[in-house]
Amino acid sequence: MLRIAVDCMGGDYAPLEIVRGCILASRELGYKILLVGDKDKIFPILQKAGQEKNPLLEVVHAPDNVGMHEPPSSVLKRKSSSLYVAGMLVRKGEADGLVSAGNTGAVLAVGKFIVGAEREVERPSIGVALPNPKGKTVLIDVGANVDCKPRHLVQFAVMGHTYAQEMLGVKNPRVGILSIGEEEGKGNELVKETYPLLKRTALNFLGNAEGRDIYSGNFDVIVCDGFVGNVILKASESLGFAVVHMIKEEIKRSWLARLGALLLMPALNRFRKKADFAEYGGIPLLGAKKPVIITHGRANAKAIKNAVRVAGEFLNTSFNEKLVENLRTLIPQEVRA
Amino acid sequence: MLRIAVDCMGGDYAPLEIVRGCILASRELGYKILLVGDKDKIFPILQKAGQEKNPLLEVVHAPDNVGMHEPPSSVLKRKSSSLYVAGMLVRKGEADGLVSAGNTGAVLAVGKFIVGAEREVERPSIGVALPNPKGKTVLIDVGANVDCKPRHLVQFAVMGHTYAQEMLGVKNPRVGILSIGEEEGKGNELVKETYPLLKRTALNFLGNAEGRDIYSGNFDVIVCDGFVGNVILKASESLGFAVVHMIKEEIKRSWLARLGALLLMPALNRFRKKADFAEYGGIPLLGAKKPVIITHGRANAKAIKNAVRVAGEFLNTSFNEKLVENLRTLIPQEVRA
Repeated sequence: MLRIAVDCMGGDYAPLEIVRGCILASRELGYKILLVGDKDKIFPILQKAGQEKNPLLEVVHAPDNVGMHEPPSSVLKRKSSSLYVAGMLVRKGEADGLVSAGNTGAVLAVGKFIVGAEREVERPSIGVALPNPKGKTVLIDVGANVDCKPRHLVQFAVMGHTYAQEMLGVKNPRVGILSIGEEEGKGNELVKETYPLLKRTALNFLGNAEGRDIYSGNFDVIVCDGFVGNVILKASESLGFAVVHMIKEEIKRSWLARLGALLLMPALNRFRKKADFAEYGGIPLLGAKKPVIITHGRANAKAIKNAVRVAGEFLNTSFNEKLVENLRTLIPQEVRA
Repeated sequence: MLRIAVDCMGGDYAPLEIVRGCILASRELGYKILLVGDKDKIFPILQKAGQEKNPLLEVVHAPDNVGMHEPPSSVLKRKSSSLYVAGMLVRKGEADGLVSAGNTGAVLAVGKFIVGAEREVERPSIGVALPNPKGKTVLIDVGANVDCKPRHLVQFAVMGHTYAQEMLGVKNPRVGILSIGEEEGKGNELVKETYPLLKRTALNFLGNAEGRDIYSGNFDVIVCDGFVGNVILKASESLGFAVVHMIKEEIKRSWLARLGALLLMPALNRFRKKADFAEYGGIPLLGAKKPVIITHGRANAKAIKNAVRVAGEFLNTSFNEKLVENLRTLIPQEVRA
């Protein structure tokens, strides 16, 4: 039976929504959930839900908690924090993966230094599969690595390629590097240095992708450094909110438009479901030895349940084996050095 | 009377839509338009519209044209290209500003090296005012400067501040630097080096802005390097298209939703008008001595007319005087060096 450690103290709605998510996960997925955090806060929630004797829910006491505004690396010294304890459960083999909605930097630190990376992986990274009219495009890295060297981007490309193949079922992923023009030679220093290296890999490298290609469906994988990927991801999310808000304001101005909006609601809800992070739950730190699933700070119970599901799905693939193999075979020796 | 040089050969719909835009501009704005390009292509369009004797429309022959995929700097050697000739008209004082939908890099090169920058401006840059539920936020730079030093970002901040004050009427613009976390110390090397410099300026500097703040309305000006700004701008535009497409697909599935969409149409059109580039026309290269208005490659007649309007509006402000004054007074000497 899969055992997933869930950090019950991280996130805007911790611990209530996180514990509720654990209950949902145990019921719907049948996994054993290790609820890591302050037992005096977790137990009453379980009791109220009549779940305190559920054998799939085990509380692991960890009284400390790394706040959203604390330096990420502090988690490595905070040995009784929920995140550190969850990481150690995975490291010691007592859990098969972990889920956290807490301080993202701290989750990354636990992933890199406590769970640890596969030996071939220099820098674990985060890829997200963003929806577009034709399918999905993996943008990688979206925040795990801020200042990168060309060889790191090459590794991210292989991680994205493996993600597209193993998780999204894309046969021969079309890989691009994010830049500000189509032609080779356009871009910043990092892009210009990385481009020739990517050309020498065995990846299906199509060259530069532009910002518009993130949602065009012309690429399966787009590589960038974690600074650029992170600001794009957050800008996209907030643009979505802003557009919905501005359309709502326009709708309020006429009753005909209000009626129209009412009739449209089911279609809009189907769309929202595709775009809602609570539906996909969380994203894995790629290259870590075991699933480390990062979920949104605003994660609710459903998002937590889905993040646990993502951890399980990840364990059911051969992603890590393939990644290690691909890093060895797709990148020629001289590019790796 | 204002005289605006329009590059009639640049853009996806050149020369037809560009010439039509010039006709619209002369009619609606009453400016003198210098139509720069191949006279054998421009004249027939004017004739067909019965405008060949309109005294507000003057054709300036320039047989060559810099293509969208040619290296931008090549324009500086292509002395009979429409873009070069348009730039020279401004430089020699025969036109008060220029508009082009052509190769953006080439337009920038003409702006920087032919029209020229104000003496205090080290690097002209492009700011766009992006809409949000509370108003507008100027994102600067969005593509004029790819690899930047901290002191360039400080200058962009002052340009954005001046833009928000002079063009958007914001009293005391709230300025932020784009990063991947709120706290000082988060970000890439460039951000970490620029942050303390911005703190020492007389700007209303609020610190780090995150990707989500581009559309949150919490900042009036957000500074970034031109690589990051460009990919965000293009990603945003394409996300808009993708969302509309995906919602349309959902709507097609039910006739009730189709009816709803029909009733909603006027509201959606009002919204689209706010977001449509053809409505705002073009964006000025800030720091150039005279207005150099860059419009979208997909510019139609309406967009060209609006870009000419933007050039006129720009000339009616005291943007350049204020910019020079602000660069002198808001940045302390030790930050400038």
